[in-house]
Amino acid sequence: MPPLFSSPPDEALYTSADITDTIRKESVMEMEKVTEVVNTSCSESKRPLLIATNDDFNSYIHNNSIENFLFDCDGVLYRGTDAMPCASQTIQQLISRGKKVFFVTNNAASTRMELKTKLEKVLNCRGILKEDMMIGSAYVAGQYLKSCKLTKDSDNKTRVHVIGTAGLCSELQSAGFDISEGEIDALVIGLDNDFNYRKLCIATVLLQRNPDALLVATNLDAFDLVGFDARHLPGNGALVSAVEMASGRTAINVGKPSSTLSELIMDVYGLKAEETLMVGDRLDTDITFGNDSGMKSALVLTGCATSSDIASVMKDDESSQMIPSVIFPHVGYMFDDAAGDN
Amino acid sequence: MPPLFSSPPDEALYTSADITDTIRKESVMEMEKVTEVVNTSCSESKRPLLIATNDDFNSYIHNNSIENFLFDCDGVLYRGTDAMPCASQTIQQLISRGKKVFFVTNNAASTRMELKTKLEKVLNCRGILKEDMMIGSAYVAGQYLKSCKLTKDSDNKTRVHVIGTAGLCSELQSAGFDISEGEIDALVIGLDNDFNYRKLCIATVLLQRNPDALLVATNLDAFDLVGFDARHLPGNGALVSAVEMASGRTAINVGKPSSTLSELIMDVYGLKAEETLMVGDRLDTDITFGNDSGMKSALVLTGCATSSDIASVMKDDESSQMIPSVIFPHVGYMFDDAAGDN
Repeated sequence: MPPLFSSPPDEALYTSADITDTIRKESVMEMEKVTEVVNTSCSESKRPLLIATNDDFNSYIHNNSIENFLFDCDGVLYRGTDAMPCASQTIQQLISRGKKVFFVTNNAASTRMELKTKLEKVLNCRGILKEDMMIGSAYVAGQYLKSCKLTKDSDNKTRVHVIGTAGLCSELQSAGFDISEGEIDALVIGLDNDFNYRKLCIATVLLQRNPDALLVATNLDAFDLVGFDARHLPGNGALVSAVEMASGRTAINVGKPSSTLSELIMDVYGLKAEETLMVGDRLDTDITFGNDSGMKSALVLTGCATSSDIASVMKDDESSQMIPSVIFPHVGYMFDDAAGDN
Repeated sequence: MPPLFSSPPDEALYTSADITDTIRKESVMEMEKVTEVVNTSCSESKRPLLIATNDDFNSYIHNNSIENFLFDCDGVLYRGTDAMPCASQTIQQLISRGKKVFFVTNNAASTRMELKTKLEKVLNCRGILKEDMMIGSAYVAGQYLKSCKLTKDSDNKTRVHVIGTAGLCSELQSAGFDISEGEIDALVIGLDNDFNYRKLCIATVLLQRNPDALLVATNLDAFDLVGFDARHLPGNGALVSAVEMASGRTAINVGKPSSTLSELIMDVYGLKAEETLMVGDRLDTDITFGNDSGMKSALVLTGCATSSDIASVMKDDESSQMIPSVIFPHVGYMFDDAAGDN
């Protein structure tokens, strides 16, 4: 029996270049299956555009006047600490051409600064990324709470209890909130590897004490694909679901695909949705988010979504918000000087 | 600010008799509010019978030919380690009159033997209770899995992974199952005070490895009232909800109000539903369970349900399965030699 939590591959056996090459080949093979699924789909009106070459993508961007690019991170730009094929060149080219680029992730573990540092390292592109390109859901949770104008206590403090990482607490403190273990004005839930029954009890009791306290989820992802071997581990949605069940409350989601997030982005950065492309690997978060907010949506096949997921949303009338505008194998298809580099 | 988890009251200040007396008075006061709610309710056809005296209850039992009594435990027969008013006399009288008495609890922490020992101690009635009167949801989970006739492996073992207490594991072993941390044929979830993210990960990975493994919940209670001060703490439903969300699976509930449980009880003990009364303190589990299975249902006001809960189910057409057949303040109203002892 394989171990439940396997170790990363031996570095002597697999280099980052090997891994990137494997991802490149797998995503191109998955694209063949997607092509078959899409071409045999009954409803022509729903069919996404299939991007076969970098030139195809360039034409799509030109024809649709796309000026802004929102990128999901895990599964799109990198997996673990390995960059996706041509991810670095793609980002550098877009920025050098004056396009607006943002990194929009439901991962609430990191501050904006930490996310910037990771991207610079993994994409090997120091000096061109800025902190305000980073739209992590920890940062968004802080901005959302600020927008709610919660009542302050006699010490002029607004108190937030957190289930989540130090990075999430840090972003909330940067937004002006006090982290509290006692009386609260809001409870924020982000993925927490130290989540346990005691934390669940405390959250439930705090919400009972102040039924007016806001209950905010950084995201509702049911699971995350973690590590090189893409283990399927519980996401923040599972923790939120436990708190909701115990408290009888419903959380406000500030992550993808919520409209709270798209309104904040459009408002703060002055973007037009119709000139914006959301690039992601998940149908339920990234693609739904792009479609719901009136953006174009692009799916890559290097993360969660597979050809069979696409087949099932195309069959189901109620899932039409999960059908992407365009599909291509990996983010390198956006890099138009590739010259066969894919 | 009061502490999150308050200590039990000082024994020098509050004796068990004091606590029982407080419960008696509070439940009678709550009954006055219930009476007002029921009498001002618009829909006459739905009105439960309100039991005002022990004689009323005796007549009800006689008129409805009730032979079998299913008792929920926490909130009905005791709270913590304190017996409810006349709980002991009620149980002893029913048994001495030849009625069939069972204890049906969603608490999956104890084996049948442990539950019997607790009841004997709290109700001070050694020698009259038998193990087969104890229908705890740990025992039921084992019986349910047996009824599923799961395939055995080459070692002639059927492997069950457990989120829950030693008592739950013990009941599953008594039913013939191997407790496994690896390959599984079923995953059983009972309330686990040591629940944490790692346990959630393991459960998710095991369910992914064997998509045919049964997923069983001992109950889906959203919360439990715990201790003398009735703290509202997360129930097993919260843990099940986290596992369901992360795995994309739906658990089979073998606790109240599931029909799986009522079928098992009726079948094993040869009871007729129409001659059976389910006595409980929760509308969503006990009363729904009784009503759904064609029994009569009796609500006591010493546990979860309040007059405002009753008001809301009486207003809502979709909640009619939560309206009890009869309501009385506490279990002592079932003891017909009380002579004003209530």
